[in-house]
Amino acid sequence: MPSSLKKIRIGVIGTSEPDARLYRIAEEVGREIARRDGVLICGGLGGVMEAAAKGAQQKGGLTIGILPTEDTSLANPYIDIPIATGIGEARNIIIVRSAEALIAIGKGFGTLSEISFALKMKKPLVGIETWDVSSQILSADKPSEAVEKAIKLAEEAK
Amino acid sequence: MPSSLKKIRIGVIGTSEPDARLYRIAEEVGREIARRDGVLICGGLGGVMEAAAKGAQQKGGLTIGILPTEDTSLANPYIDIPIATGIGEARNIIIVRSAEALIAIGKGFGTLSEISFALKMKKPLVGIETWDVSSQILSADKPSEAVEKAIKLAEEAK
Amino acid sequence: MPSSLKKIRIGVIGTSEPDARLYRIAEEVGREIARRDGVLICGGLGGVMEAAAKGAQQKGGLTIGILPTEDTSLANPYIDIPIATGIGEARNIIIVRSAEALIAIGKGFGTLSEISFALKMKKPLVGIETWDVSSQILSADKPSEAVEKAIKLAEEAK
Amino acid sequence: MPSSLKKIRIGVIGTSEPDARLYRIAEEVGREIARRDGVLICGGLGGVMEAAAKGAQQKGGLTIGILPTEDTSLANPYIDIPIATGIGEARNIIIVRSAEALIAIGKGFGTLSEISFALKMKKPLVGIETWDVSSQILSADKPSEAVEKAIKLAEEAK
Repeated sequence: MPSSLKKIRIGVIGTSEPDARLYRIAEEVGREIARRDGVLICGGLGGVMEAAAKGAQQKGGLTIGILPTEDTSLANPYIDIPIATGIGEARNIIIVRSAEALIAIGKGFGTLSEISFALKMKKPLVGIETWDVSSQILSADKPSEAVEKAIKLAEEAK
Repeated sequence: MPSSLKKIRIGVIGTSEPDARLYRIAEEVGREIARRDGVLICGGLGGVMEAAAKGAQQKGGLTIGILPTEDTSLANPYIDIPIATGIGEARNIIIVRSAEALIAIGKGFGTLSEISFALKMKKPLVGIETWDVSSQILSADKPSEAVEKAIKLAEEAK
Repeated sequence: MPSSLKKIRIGVIGTSEPDARLYRIAEEVGREIARRDGVLICGGLGGVMEAAAKGAQQKGGLTIGILPTEDTSLANPYIDIPIATGIGEARNIIIVRSAEALIAIGKGFGTLSEISFALKMKKPLVGIETWDVSSQILSADKPSEAVEKAIKLAEEAK
Repeated sequence: MPSSLKKIRIGVIGTSEPDARLYRIAEEVGREIARRDGVLICGGLGGVMEAAAKGAQQKGGLTIGILPTEDTSLANPYIDIPIATGIGEARNIIIVRSAEALIAIGKGFGTLSEISFALKMKKPLVGIETWDVSSQILSADKPSEAVEKAIKLAEEAK
């Protein structure tokens, strides 16, 4: 039986242009997801998406990149399974639908669209220094806390 | 030559569950768009979408509904041209892409996703009692003011 | 009441690289749709899509272009209402879903994908020199015959 | 480094209502993909999709299901990573884009749409008892032959 079977899928959403500190936070979030045996789902491109995938791969986790592009050539090098949607930014909603819980890192308008969809679907959502648009978003100060909360919420929602 | 040719396309986005006051505001926004010879683009369903289409039709305007559904049966009765996308809420981005300027009315998470996409694409965006997430959103107090600003911005962006 | 209200929506699908003869056929199909008071829905780009839109506009018909692109700049000049989906070739299915009957002209792989979706949804489908993959496709020799059949089938399916 | 890294992604497309013989063929195709260390990408639902995923899982392969639905509840039980696109049949093109080569099994209109997209994108495509619409489709008599050809073509296309 493949090791990924029944693993919890955690989505990490965030800006493609984080500062160095947020990049490191995203990397640690990725590592924490892999340490807790989760599968990472992200947008597959740069910035927060790359950092989280890099961290997850370092700890042996599986990384899925839901790309906006028509082919997989723009996937960051830490994506194991690139999904080339070819539907542009509309792919944001696929990330949200496919993850069992989401962690938003930083502020960007793409991230805000993903947060909106997550709120609409009532998906478990944890935020680190992100948009403060709803009390449904649980805030976390540290990567380990964010991942712990996300996994707990995802398990409760099953 | 069809009368719609070269007409400005104004998108109206907003919650499917507005209160009576916001419904009337959306209706008047629709009327104003038609009075100024614009084409209305909306999500095709109920609430703000219905009110705006109703108002636009009253004044002889053309109404386009970009539906999330696989067929057109759920379009509100004031939609002239229903587009059945079948892609669910991912259709929100198509409304934003297809309009030359947008007017957001009220607060809803679907509306917030559309605002996010509009901000990301730097589309002209006017808000009436909506999410206050960026200074790029021009606020308007009255329907006529909102439509006037939206059309002006759309023409400048051409 | 807008003149487009309750008009039948006829989709015209076909290759972006028709020869001169097929281009003229598509143009005449567009004219016939407008003469019979239908609204034309097409993919908004060149070739058969352009020819059909050109013909429909000549006779005062309304033309809708469901574009694969993120903006409307690539729409052919005969499109009244460009819908910028930004979802690439996935937009083919939106053309099929939004039309009440379809006319396929010529052979192309994009056209074949649209025919496939139409067959799957059991949409009325008339073909002129197109893929012969199902007896559900009614063949027509002339533009007027194709449009007459398409409109008749669309009305019966209501 | 995760075992999936750099693995070839083979898409299996086919009807959701195969007869018993085609179901067994699809199962063997799945097993062959896993034996040759490929990742299976499919539509995530029943019939050929289920059979291929079942076979791949039996041999320890990773299985990705690109679902049309808004949530993952309809995924067949052999899918490791369900991607809930929520975009309906438009997801067919995502399967094609994400796979490096495709194997089509049997005839269905959904399958024909996927074949059309694969031909348009010039993706390597092997068919078993499927639509005969282009000489670009390599035919194969046996599952092992189909998978061998698909992997060879995918490697050549890199």
